[in-house]
Amino acid sequence: MKKTLVSFGALALVGMAGGAGFAEEFPDAQKTLPASMGWMQGFPPAQEKTLHASDGSFFEFPALRYSVNHMREFYPTRNVSSGNGKKYSVKQKLDPKIDNVTFTPWDSDKTMTFEESLDANYTDGIIVMHKGKIVYEKYPAGLKPDGLHAAMSVSKSFTGTVASILAAEGKLDPSKKVTDYIPELKDSGYADATVRQVMDMTTAIKYSEDYNDPNAEIWAYSAAGNVFRPINYRGPQNYYEYLATVKKLPDLEHGEAFGYRTINTELLAWICSRVTGQGLAEMVSEMIWKPLGAHYDGFYQLDPSGIAFAGGGFDLNLRDMAMFGEMMRNGGKLNGKQIIPEKAVKDIASGGSSEEYKAAFAKSDYTKLKGWSYHNMWWITNNSHGAYMARGVHGQAIYIDPAAEMVIARFASTHYASNKYIDPLSIPAYEAVAEYLMKK
Amino acid sequence: MKKTLVSFGALALVGMAGGAGFAEEFPDAQKTLPASMGWMQGFPPAQEKTLHASDGSFFEFPALRYSVNHMREFYPTRNVSSGNGKKYSVKQKLDPKIDNVTFTPWDSDKTMTFEESLDANYTDGIIVMHKGKIVYEKYPAGLKPDGLHAAMSVSKSFTGTVASILAAEGKLDPSKKVTDYIPELKDSGYADATVRQVMDMTTAIKYSEDYNDPNAEIWAYSAAGNVFRPINYRGPQNYYEYLATVKKLPDLEHGEAFGYRTINTELLAWICSRVTGQGLAEMVSEMIWKPLGAHYDGFYQLDPSGIAFAGGGFDLNLRDMAMFGEMMRNGGKLNGKQIIPEKAVKDIASGGSSEEYKAAFAKSDYTKLKGWSYHNMWWITNNSHGAYMARGVHGQAIYIDPAAEMVIARFASTHYASNKYIDPLSIPAYEAVAEYLMKK
Repeated sequence: MKKTLVSFGALALVGMAGGAGFAEEFPDAQKTLPASMGWMQGFPPAQEKTLHASDGSFFEFPALRYSVNHMREFYPTRNVSSGNGKKYSVKQKLDPKIDNVTFTPWDSDKTMTFEESLDANYTDGIIVMHKGKIVYEKYPAGLKPDGLHAAMSVSKSFTGTVASILAAEGKLDPSKKVTDYIPELKDSGYADATVRQVMDMTTAIKYSEDYNDPNAEIWAYSAAGNVFRPINYRGPQNYYEYLATVKKLPDLEHGEAFGYRTINTELLAWICSRVTGQGLAEMVSEMIWKPLGAHYDGFYQLDPSGIAFAGGGFDLNLRDMAMFGEMMRNGGKLNGKQIIPEKAVKDIASGGSSEEYKAAFAKSDYTKLKGWSYHNMWWITNNSHGAYMARGVHGQAIYIDPAAEMVIARFASTHYASNKYIDPLSIPAYEAVAEYLMKK
Repeated sequence: MKKTLVSFGALALVGMAGGAGFAEEFPDAQKTLPASMGWMQGFPPAQEKTLHASDGSFFEFPALRYSVNHMREFYPTRNVSSGNGKKYSVKQKLDPKIDNVTFTPWDSDKTMTFEESLDANYTDGIIVMHKGKIVYEKYPAGLKPDGLHAAMSVSKSFTGTVASILAAEGKLDPSKKVTDYIPELKDSGYADATVRQVMDMTTAIKYSEDYNDPNAEIWAYSAAGNVFRPINYRGPQNYYEYLATVKKLPDLEHGEAFGYRTINTELLAWICSRVTGQGLAEMVSEMIWKPLGAHYDGFYQLDPSGIAFAGGGFDLNLRDMAMFGEMMRNGGKLNGKQIIPEKAVKDIASGGSSEEYKAAFAKSDYTKLKGWSYHNMWWITNNSHGAYMARGVHGQAIYIDPAAEMVIARFASTHYASNKYIDPLSIPAYEAVAEYLMKK
C-alpha cells in the first residue's frame, strides 16, 4: 500500500485545502473498494486491517476509502438533527444516457464518458438533479444510499450559508470588525479584519498549510483540535484558543487577496455562535437541516472542547446534500416552502461576481480556475451558466448550475487530496452533463 | 467539587459493576443540574467547565450528569439504526397520583413519596408503563424527550437478548463450549467454559474490578479498550485480544457461582458476532431496533478496533427503552407484531428461577438482593410478581413486572456508581408503584 504524501499523523484535522503535489501511481478505484480491502472487517479485524485516527492510518490511501464512510467511528461527534417534522419529497426519473455523455478532461486530448469519470474520480456516490428530479444516482464504491459520508471542505459552505442567513436576517453585520464579535482576538492577526473578509477568505493572516514544513501553522492548529493529542500537550486547548495566536502577514493587507485557509471558517463559526448562542451543529440543524426536511441526521467532528470542526468536519447523506443544493438553486425554496432567506442565496450565488472579487481570487494559486471567485465560503465559477460550488478535498462537491437547472452532489475518495488534481476530470464533466440536459 | 472514588482515569470503560464503598456527602440533585453547572457551555467553554474522556474528567460527579446525555461527543461511536420502517405507536395517559405513592426505603424507617425518590436517585428521565400505556413520564434533570442517554450495564441485557434470540432460533447452542465458537480462547481461562456459563456470568475467571488495586485485571482490560491510550502502549489491542489473556481462578469451577464481570458480556457479543458475521451494533439494529420500530437511532461506544462495548456502551432514547421493556413484558410482541421470539423472552423471564440459579447467585456479594438470580445477562428478582431487570451503574434500569403489567425505564446520574447504593431507594419504589397500579 502506498501512502499519500499528506499523512495526517495524529491529527484530528481533515478536509484542508491540501497543496502538496505528487505524481505517484496509485491503484485504481476497482482495486481499492473498501469491501474487498477488508478494512475493519472481522471479529476482531486483523491488525494490518485496523485503522486508527490517533496514528493517522485511517486517512492513508486507500484506507481512507473506508474511513470517509465511517467517520463517527473514529472521532467524538455531535448530531445534526433533521427533526421529526415533514421530510422533503423528491422524484427519481433516471436517464441512463447520462452515462454516455462525453467530455474532454483538462490537459488531455482524449475524450472520456461520464460513466468512465466515476471510477477515475474514485466516486463513492453521485447524484445529478435536473429540474428538481433525480436523473442520475449511483453508488459505485460501497457507500449505501442511507449512509453518511465526510463532506470535508464542503462543510465550509454550510458554515458560510449559516453566516449568510444570519446576515440576511440582519443578525450579523459582515461590515463589522471581527473583534466586535470576538474581543478575544484583539491582539491577533485578525484584529483589523472585517467579518466580510473572513467570509470571503481574504484575511491576510500568516497561516501555512505546507505539510512539508514542520513549522507550518497547520501543525499547531491541528494539535489544538486533536482529541488524540499527547497527555503532556500544553498548547492552545481548542480551535478558538488557537485563533487568538494567529499573526498577520507582514506584506499583505486584509481584503487584497483570496487565500484559502481553513481557520477562517472556524472563526466564522465562532462569530455565528456568538450571535446565536448556539454551536454550529445546532445552527445547521435549526437553520437548515430541519427546515429542509433532511431525511437523515448529519454530524460534526468535535475538537477537545466540543467545538464542531466548521472547516471540514460535517458528515451527511448524499441525497440530503443534493437536496440542499436543489434548495439553493431554487432561491432557498424546496417543495414550495422557503427554507432559508432568498436574500442569503442571492448573495452566495452572485454576490462574488464583481471584478474586485475576481482580482482577489486571481492572486491565489488556483491558476486552473480562471475567472473564478470565492464568496461566503462558496466557490463561484463566474461561467456563462452562473454555476457555483461547494468543494472538499478528495473529491467532495456540490455543483449548482442555475442556467441548466442542474445540481450535482458527489462524494468521493480520490488518492489525491487537492482538487487541483480532481478538477480536470470533474469540472468539464459537470459542464458536459449540463449542456446535455439543456438540449433534452 | 468532590470526586467519586471510582475515577475512570483514562479509561474508555464505563458501566462496570463498581464495588467500592464510600459514604461521602455529595451535593444533591437540584444543585448538580447540568444546565446550571455550565459544563461544556460557551464558545469556547471555560477550561474548568471543559470535560474530556481522555483524562476521565467527564465521568467525575457531578460532571457525569452532563456526560451521560452526551456520550457520543466524547468517544468514537457506531450508529444503531432504527431503520425507515413503521415506528411503534404508544399512548400516554398520565396518572399524577403516582407521585404520591409512598414506600419505605431499605434500611430506613421513614417513608418517601415516589416523587421524592426522583431527585434522591438523581433521575434524568423516568417512564412508567401500565397495560401498554405511558402513565408517568418525567425528565427532571435536563434530559430531553428526544435525547439519548448512556445505558451503562443495561447494555448487557441487550447483548443477552441478542444471544437469547440466536439461541431461540437455533443458531447459537448455549451448551457448547466457548472454544467451539472462539478457538482463539483455547489457552485462556475460558477454555473449559460453556456459552451458557458466559450468558449467566458463572465463569470462574480471575478478573478483579477493584479500582483500589493497581494490579486488578480491570486496568489491563480498560487499556485494551481505550481509544485514548498512550501512543507507546503495547498490550492487547482491543477487547477480544484482552479476553485471550484471561486466567481461571485456582479455587473455583465454571458454573458454581455468579460473578458479575463485564468481560463475560464482551465475550458473549464476540460469540454472537461469530455466529452472525455482524458486529453488535448491527445485530441490535437488525434483530431488535428495527423490528421494534424504535423512534430514535441508538449508538455504541467503540474500542480502538471498532468493536462495540457490549458490557456498557449502548446509548438510547428513554421512550425506546421503555417500549423495549414493554415488548419483553408482552412475550416479544409490540403493537400486535412479534418482534423477537417468544421463546427467547420466556427463557430470559423465567429460565433463571430454579434453586440452582438462586444458589449460584447467593454465592456473590449482592447480599441485599435475597433470592435473586442472574440469567442471559438479565437480573431476575424471583419475587411474587416475577419481576426482572436490566441494571446499570449510576441508576440505569428497566424493571419489568409481569403481574402488575408494569414496565419502568429509568435513566439517572447518581453520585454512587454501584446499584448497592441505589437499590434501597429504587426497588421498594418500583414495588410500591406496582402495588398501586394493581389496585387501580
